[in-house]
Amino acid sequence: MHTTALVLFSGGQDSTTCLAYALSRYERVETIAFDYGQRHSVELDARLNVLREIKSAFPQWAARLGEDHLLDLSVLGKVSETSLTRDTEFKMEANGLPNTFVPGRNLLFLTLAAAVAYRRGLQVLVTGVCETDFSGYPDCRDDTMKAMQLALSLGMDQRFLIETPLMWIDKAATWELARDLGGTALVDLIVEHTHTCYLGDRTHRHAWGYGCGECPACALRSKGYAGFSASLNKASLPAG
Amino acid sequence: MHTTALVLFSGGQDSTTCLAYALSRYERVETIAFDYGQRHSVELDARLNVLREIKSAFPQWAARLGEDHLLDLSVLGKVSETSLTRDTEFKMEANGLPNTFVPGRNLLFLTLAAAVAYRRGLQVLVTGVCETDFSGYPDCRDDTMKAMQLALSLGMDQRFLIETPLMWIDKAATWELARDLGGTALVDLIVEHTHTCYLGDRTHRHAWGYGCGECPACALRSKGYAGFSASLNKASLPAG
Repeated sequence: MHTTALVLFSGGQDSTTCLAYALSRYERVETIAFDYGQRHSVELDARLNVLREIKSAFPQWAARLGEDHLLDLSVLGKVSETSLTRDTEFKMEANGLPNTFVPGRNLLFLTLAAAVAYRRGLQVLVTGVCETDFSGYPDCRDDTMKAMQLALSLGMDQRFLIETPLMWIDKAATWELARDLGGTALVDLIVEHTHTCYLGDRTHRHAWGYGCGECPACALRSKGYAGFSASLNKASLPAG
Repeated sequence: MHTTALVLFSGGQDSTTCLAYALSRYERVETIAFDYGQRHSVELDARLNVLREIKSAFPQWAARLGEDHLLDLSVLGKVSETSLTRDTEFKMEANGLPNTFVPGRNLLFLTLAAAVAYRRGLQVLVTGVCETDFSGYPDCRDDTMKAMQLALSLGMDQRFLIETPLMWIDKAATWELARDLGGTALVDLIVEHTHTCYLGDRTHRHAWGYGCGECPACALRSKGYAGFSASLNKASLPAG
């Protein structure tokens, strides 16, 4: 029924796995990301590197991979300015969400993605949001995604499907999904070319990829990879 | 229960009436609009003129009227570029929607408004969307607004109320609502300072305000004012 997709693709491990997921099942796949003054251009570089490497290593997917869209969303910086903050600052901190939290950021991403999908004739929106590792963000929750599917489908008078292949799996299972979709070639590509580290560190190399190894994003990626490796080693033990 | 509101305020007749509606019932009211390369800076000028005139003519409202927010949304221009258009162009024309249609534009406006409302501690989003006069736009429909209220409330983990005081009334009734809220002083203010004309015409003055008098927006405003005037004259006839 669905043959075309637009993947919200940031160049990280999660969205690269989502891209592989979409390429494995849809005939035409495009990608989209948003430039809003990210901490490091390293993230935007990683996107292009991953796209290039996928085209080179997976010819069957290269034929399906279409345009990449990068939209300027500097308005996000404006919304997160402290000058815009009133008495909610305290509440946000009580929530455990950081000061720079832009409420509903993913709703904006999805709405813009749907607008582009509409104009490009794409049916499915694939996003790597996940409740398992990062339930602090309400705009990543499953309830939110389902409400957004309704709002977008009604608001554009065209049905969209929002797919969230990572919603209920942890980071170890995300590595496993990548292996199932593209074998060790995809796992290696993700290790080498995707970017996760909050500090933009591309100098320290670990088994799970580049990064400072200390920030929450590195910790999560590292722990997930360790779980994935352990299950691999277990699976490769001789039976009996 | 609700005491604060953020009004999506473009400087036109509809959103000015919505602003008066909010000022008549909420203790603190702020305004927001989006700069995305509108046809004429006349629209952005009209906003500031209307705010200034309201503060001057309605002291009881002036005390409630807080900050005005103008967010850059030039990304909309990017989304509406024809380069982004694929095979949906034909379908959009069959829909009767113009080429420059940005699908889901109001969803973006509402999402950004909710993000600002979250940070400013405002509860109600007031928007002048209306099915009566302009049902062609799916992102103005009542179903869409209700789905968006769910998506925004879930996605920001804070309840928002989307109010649409004009949803089911026509342009004549919108003039009547303005009179009920602020008397003839508000009607006169709307005639003189709000802007509607698609061509940005501020040289031709009519009973209903400035405009070319020919474009669809002028035609709608003029027809609504005629209906409003007729009902006024009827009401003022001696009984019997």
